[in-house]
Amino acid sequence: MSIDSVTISPRFYETDALGHINNASIAAWFEVARIRFLESLGGEGSESARSWILASLQIDFIAETFYGSDVIATVTSATPGNSSLTIVCEMSQHEKLTVRGTAVLVHMDQLEKKPSRIPDGLREQLGAF
Amino acid sequence: MSIDSVTISPRFYETDALGHINNASIAAWFEVARIRFLESLGGEGSESARSWILASLQIDFIAETFYGSDVIATVTSATPGNSSLTIVCEMSQHEKLTVRGTAVLVHMDQLEKKPSRIPDGLREQLGAF
Amino acid sequence: MSIDSVTISPRFYETDALGHINNASIAAWFEVARIRFLESLGGEGSESARSWILASLQIDFIAETFYGSDVIATVTSATPGNSSLTIVCEMSQHEKLTVRGTAVLVHMDQLEKKPSRIPDGLREQLGAF
Amino acid sequence: MSIDSVTISPRFYETDALGHINNASIAAWFEVARIRFLESLGGEGSESARSWILASLQIDFIAETFYGSDVIATVTSATPGNSSLTIVCEMSQHEKLTVRGTAVLVHMDQLEKKPSRIPDGLREQLGAF
Repeated sequence: MSIDSVTISPRFYETDALGHINNASIAAWFEVARIRFLESLGGEGSESARSWILASLQIDFIAETFYGSDVIATVTSATPGNSSLTIVCEMSQHEKLTVRGTAVLVHMDQLEKKPSRIPDGLREQLGAF
Repeated sequence: MSIDSVTISPRFYETDALGHINNASIAAWFEVARIRFLESLGGEGSESARSWILASLQIDFIAETFYGSDVIATVTSATPGNSSLTIVCEMSQHEKLTVRGTAVLVHMDQLEKKPSRIPDGLREQLGAF
Repeated sequence: MSIDSVTISPRFYETDALGHINNASIAAWFEVARIRFLESLGGEGSESARSWILASLQIDFIAETFYGSDVIATVTSATPGNSSLTIVCEMSQHEKLTVRGTAVLVHMDQLEKKPSRIPDGLREQLGAF
Repeated sequence: MSIDSVTISPRFYETDALGHINNASIAAWFEVARIRFLESLGGEGSESARSWILASLQIDFIAETFYGSDVIATVTSATPGNSSLTIVCEMSQHEKLTVRGTAVLVHMDQLEKKPSRIPDGLREQLGAF
């Protein structure tokens, strides 16, 4: 089940001397996909970079990614906890799965700067997926 | 137990608009610490970027990292499997733990381009830690 | 006169603590525009990253660039010398000019690894602009 | 005449598929050298990232830079105008000049957010070089 996809054209400077895309660039792309997904929720989901902090990141490098062909990064699930949100993202190139990433974000009360329960409206939006 | 440390001076461009160091820069620093560790093994461990591929990455963001003070990234364990090597790295700033990362690398036969058993010499070096 | 444009969606990690896009990210975008332009020439122009080396870069930061809106990077001229090629690129956001960059590339003979005259076919293509 | 040097250990992810350090990483290193220089002035010079905006950047790539050996980035001159400051930085690897960069910064009044004359105290410090 695909929730939201973003197309990423690998950039030459994202390669490294091994001739493929460096792992740090892929971690960066994952942020692109996560934020795009949160922004797509609109309202409470947007302002995403500011409403959420990243608690952890898990990335499996399943196959090499190369310069020269687009990568599709798809958020395949987004599961709310109380204040946390677990987002899974898969990347593929030439329809071959290359990367699977899982990020745990924490919803923040921006005034009090501490974790806060994900609002019901946003929770319903996420449940609809 | 500290195996090997590298000091990283955060760079201004590694911050983001939230005012702290961006997660993608921290993923990149983890590569710096891993490769430095492998190179410190010398001989079979070095040529590290070419002898090993990154299979997975897990990063816990325990506290924010800021521009303006050095970060100490320490490899705290390196556990060999058959062809895999699990490296744990902790980062701290102002003696406060900020990041814990675990990477699983796979030792590659560079000619055949497939996983190969970690050589005994290197295995002994790793066991000595 | 616009030769070739590429749309760049600023990424959150490309911001810095001043709240705008960092200059180093803009230098990186300029590479994206240059390589896309050279690849668009096809044939002799492509393999661009390998056929050309970057001799110099001049970037004027005319206005700040922000996260949240697309940037259009347009190659506005590409002037061949003997073995050199001068590419001018303008970037705009919300139709406001933000960046003007000039890069001087040198066409390389890949076997001999030294500068070589830009081939006539490619020269004609460039002249047509 | 050397004003201030910073040692940069090239990072593996800063290489690209051509096997050398990518130009965008070198633009980023230039920021490291500039900010370090401004911070070294202390007082009015510090808070550098916030007191100054980058107006333009000129980088000559004189020789390739490679992974595996330290780069020394030295600010060789810093010439104040009225509100502008022109900083020249040279980078070398293995004592061979690889990069020469010139940046024009503009001193900002942070409250009014417009260019302001470089304070006399800072001007004298710069003149002492």
